[in-house]
Amino acid sequence: MAGGPVHQALADLELVDHHCHGVVTVPLDRPDFEALLTEGGRWPGTTTFDTPAGVAVRRYCAPVLGLERHAPADVYLARRAELGPAEVNRRFLAAARTGVFCVDTGYTPQPLTSPAELAAAAGAVAHEVVAYEVVRLESVAEAVAGRGVDAGGYADAFRSAALDAVRRPGVVGVKSVAAYRTGFVLDPARPSDADVTRAARRWLARGGRLDDPVLVRHLLWTAVDLGLPLQLHTGFGDPDIRLHSVDPAHLTDWLRLIAGTIPVLLLHCWPYQRQAGYLAAVFEQVYLDVGLTLHHVGPARARAVLEEALEITPFRKLLYSSDAYGVAEFYGLGALAFRRGLGELLQDRVDADELALADALRLARWAAADNARQVYRLPDGH
Amino acid sequence: MAGGPVHQALADLELVDHHCHGVVTVPLDRPDFEALLTEGGRWPGTTTFDTPAGVAVRRYCAPVLGLERHAPADVYLARRAELGPAEVNRRFLAAARTGVFCVDTGYTPQPLTSPAELAAAAGAVAHEVVAYEVVRLESVAEAVAGRGVDAGGYADAFRSAALDAVRRPGVVGVKSVAAYRTGFVLDPARPSDADVTRAARRWLARGGRLDDPVLVRHLLWTAVDLGLPLQLHTGFGDPDIRLHSVDPAHLTDWLRLIAGTIPVLLLHCWPYQRQAGYLAAVFEQVYLDVGLTLHHVGPARARAVLEEALEITPFRKLLYSSDAYGVAEFYGLGALAFRRGLGELLQDRVDADELALADALRLARWAAADNARQVYRLPDGH
Amino acid sequence: MAGGPVHQALADLELVDHHCHGVVTVPLDRPDFEALLTEGGRWPGTTTFDTPAGVAVRRYCAPVLGLERHAPADVYLARRAELGPAEVNRRFLAAARTGVFCVDTGYTPQPLTSPAELAAAAGAVAHEVVAYEVVRLESVAEAVAGRGVDAGGYADAFRSAALDAVRRPGVVGVKSVAAYRTGFVLDPARPSDADVTRAARRWLARGGRLDDPVLVRHLLWTAVDLGLPLQLHTGFGDPDIRLHSVDPAHLTDWLRLIAGTIPVLLLHCWPYQRQAGYLAAVFEQVYLDVGLTLHHVGPARARAVLEEALEITPFRKLLYSSDAYGVAEFYGLGALAFRRGLGELLQDRVDADELALADALRLARWAAADNARQVYRLPDGH
Repeated sequence: MAGGPVHQALADLELVDHHCHGVVTVPLDRPDFEALLTEGGRWPGTTTFDTPAGVAVRRYCAPVLGLERHAPADVYLARRAELGPAEVNRRFLAAARTGVFCVDTGYTPQPLTSPAELAAAAGAVAHEVVAYEVVRLESVAEAVAGRGVDAGGYADAFRSAALDAVRRPGVVGVKSVAAYRTGFVLDPARPSDADVTRAARRWLARGGRLDDPVLVRHLLWTAVDLGLPLQLHTGFGDPDIRLHSVDPAHLTDWLRLIAGTIPVLLLHCWPYQRQAGYLAAVFEQVYLDVGLTLHHVGPARARAVLEEALEITPFRKLLYSSDAYGVAEFYGLGALAFRRGLGELLQDRVDADELALADALRLARWAAADNARQVYRLPDGH
Repeated sequence: MAGGPVHQALADLELVDHHCHGVVTVPLDRPDFEALLTEGGRWPGTTTFDTPAGVAVRRYCAPVLGLERHAPADVYLARRAELGPAEVNRRFLAAARTGVFCVDTGYTPQPLTSPAELAAAAGAVAHEVVAYEVVRLESVAEAVAGRGVDAGGYADAFRSAALDAVRRPGVVGVKSVAAYRTGFVLDPARPSDADVTRAARRWLARGGRLDDPVLVRHLLWTAVDLGLPLQLHTGFGDPDIRLHSVDPAHLTDWLRLIAGTIPVLLLHCWPYQRQAGYLAAVFEQVYLDVGLTLHHVGPARARAVLEEALEITPFRKLLYSSDAYGVAEFYGLGALAFRRGLGELLQDRVDADELALADALRLARWAAADNARQVYRLPDGH
Repeated sequence: MAGGPVHQALADLELVDHHCHGVVTVPLDRPDFEALLTEGGRWPGTTTFDTPAGVAVRRYCAPVLGLERHAPADVYLARRAELGPAEVNRRFLAAARTGVFCVDTGYTPQPLTSPAELAAAAGAVAHEVVAYEVVRLESVAEAVAGRGVDAGGYADAFRSAALDAVRRPGVVGVKSVAAYRTGFVLDPARPSDADVTRAARRWLARGGRLDDPVLVRHLLWTAVDLGLPLQLHTGFGDPDIRLHSVDPAHLTDWLRLIAGTIPVLLLHCWPYQRQAGYLAAVFEQVYLDVGLTLHHVGPARARAVLEEALEITPFRKLLYSSDAYGVAEFYGLGALAFRRGLGELLQDRVDADELALADALRLARWAAADNARQVYRLPDGH
């Protein structure tokens, strides 16, 4: 990492990772590890190490395991197996130097660390780590359906279950994956009770994921009623998404309707980081991050993405997240890419006298931690 | 500013600012000044100085007021108050070294300088400044409605009022803010007389802003009949816009229909500057600028935006505008960002022998002034 | 071109140009040459030399003709006329150092070289060049209609003609220009026989280009049945396109439906190269190039476009194409822009120790040739 006081400040700052998932605690064989490296899948005759993220893992994660930079994939995986999951997770989580994790606990197709386990793995003697929880509302709705409810009672049952979920200790926000279910080309208005009942009748009869447009709208409006910050997946992710329909600009009418209510945190955003920046510039309650993006593009392109994300974005509106899932490598890589990308962006502006050093240091602290602390009302020091 | 002959040439050139607004002539308190710094609004607990535009004002505008670079916001505002609006406006307008302003006179929620007053404030002994007028067609239509007209007479009354407006001395073009009213996802065809009458009946009964899709289409086709260059707001602006619907690519079918008629000038464009460049590359009558964008992203990112805006754009098609409104700072900042951004882009290409110096100087003159002179048929030397 | 082993390797590699057209073999006067330089048209009072592509031709192609860099347009054209088309074509095709051309033979508004003639013009003593053919399916369908067919027999006749076409020796793939005919906002499902017959009835009665949405869908599904790689024009091109509707993201639902069948090669992509990269990252069968784009943006911006195209794209998924049409200059320019742009991108990452040299060399070989060889199952060495 290049020198300079902004780089140094970012290296020293403890991050608040406002959106992430747990890590796998069991050994991973090569197919399973490779599958976790990508939003695609594993394809015969290719390896997911041959991607920007895979190259970044070999470059930046190998040394954390005591290997040479650019270690071959099989060497990397052998060493990873040798150290075992607990040690591997500990090393990358420690390398991320993150003081606070806000963990989406609602997506666990495989067993992952709980928030407390994640914090424990990341903690060290001189470094207390806290994990908060973010409640995924689609999982709450699907659990309500799974327990059995009639269509007319769905709205109340969902609201009540959501209220119970967010009142648990340590919950600081909610999340929706509406992007995966319907996209954002939706009627922005709150649906009527009758519409919700009708839609619930169809969905409860059919079963499966919550992907009815009326119920997704109802879920988003229930989030408004809950009063906690709402995280929204936007932009790229796995192939379930239709990318053009998760441009956050499609949320405009809804954002206008909910002005004055809850903070909305646009996650990932790529390749719509400029569109997200526009929304953050004109709607008081909108924030953004480029989590997930940073480790997928890798440190080599993190700065370019951050430059676009910050083109018109107010400096109180950018947050850090890793969106790491499954492999602890992405905690390390996300944090590194963020520190380096933002560090280079700010340091170069200071060096060119575009920005005063004191301002650069302030903006770095805000993005790395303080903006998240403010939005989620986290106690000072965590 | 870096050295080199292209930088020098751009520093020496008098700009033609083909799209701008007047400036406020009364003292501004901090809330009012801050509100004019942003397309969003003022939000409790934050300051619009904490944006890329705000940082650029402290960096580049403070010295124009005799302050240190990066002066704090309160020092900046105190000095601004001390000098008074006339002197502040004079300094920034002089710093912009603009020879011609084309002023949109149709948006005045607060009292602004007239075109003549703007030119007078910008003029100096050795430097004659001329201001032309651009007629905002929505304002013409709304004035027609305000004076009282029946639905069947609306089309003729609007056309007649528009003709009167553009025949006034000094009018060089018209403008539409269709982007704010309906966006560009519109039937491109000229609406029938019967459709216009029906739509006028609805609108005149309802009142308010002209935002009926049929009447907006009618307005755009009336602009074609008027025969003057048409400025179209595209891309970002205040939160009234739905960003995805003001991608200028949505204008394609209409641009195809009006081929061979009036020049169309796509304003702002961000983040769709590449899409605008495509339209300018394939439609003879299409031009673009990145006004508004340049002072919001600031000099630190002006070059990056210009690089994209010029990726495939014919060099006869890029114009300069500030789109400055309200605060004179944006005249200074827009001009500086344009000169520096384009200067760096062209000088680096000359230094890398990608571009001959004589060509670079020609392209700089074209974008800074000559393209606008040609489109608006301005007299030589102005 | 800068030094460094990656640059050198890319300079030494023979390219596989997986998508291109023939070149004109007759002398071109200035209007005809200028028209071939642009996707727009020639407009009175301007020259298409005043574009990024035109500047690149004067800079990079002039020396190939024995002229000074940045030769004026008239000097360039005089020298071109003096050498004659055969020698001009030979020089640029040789300069491209391309070992394999895959030629779209279905678009010939003017007489062009056949694949064999193209290969012969490009060949040299120490350098055997092979040309394969890509069958444009819209041309096949329109030929079927031209020969006379009734609506009920259209589907079988088209399929049979397409099968005949792809069984000709040297055919390695098919292509669709659905982008130009309907765009990609289409029902992704395979149309029913009855729907195809109905649509064929309408089209055969009306005549003209195949632009019926049902028949375009039928064409795309017929491509799936044929089993060969399918090239799809996406992103920018001439003014027949509505740019927003050819964002390849609109293909998502169809790509999901055809998973496990044919390779789909997204051509051009600009300004949606990131969206194309997303599709390549999550769908096994999706590949992309930035052909056409590279010579239009020129070597000065080729790297920037490639950086975005590779942001998350697996390294097995990027191919090279020139999409050169008509003028041989674009073979030379496309190859140069690709070699230089990719060379700078990779060499800088090697220099910054972001990427191991051996990996960079491998990625260069893949993109320059091996990925195309694999997708099209070309014999080794060609």
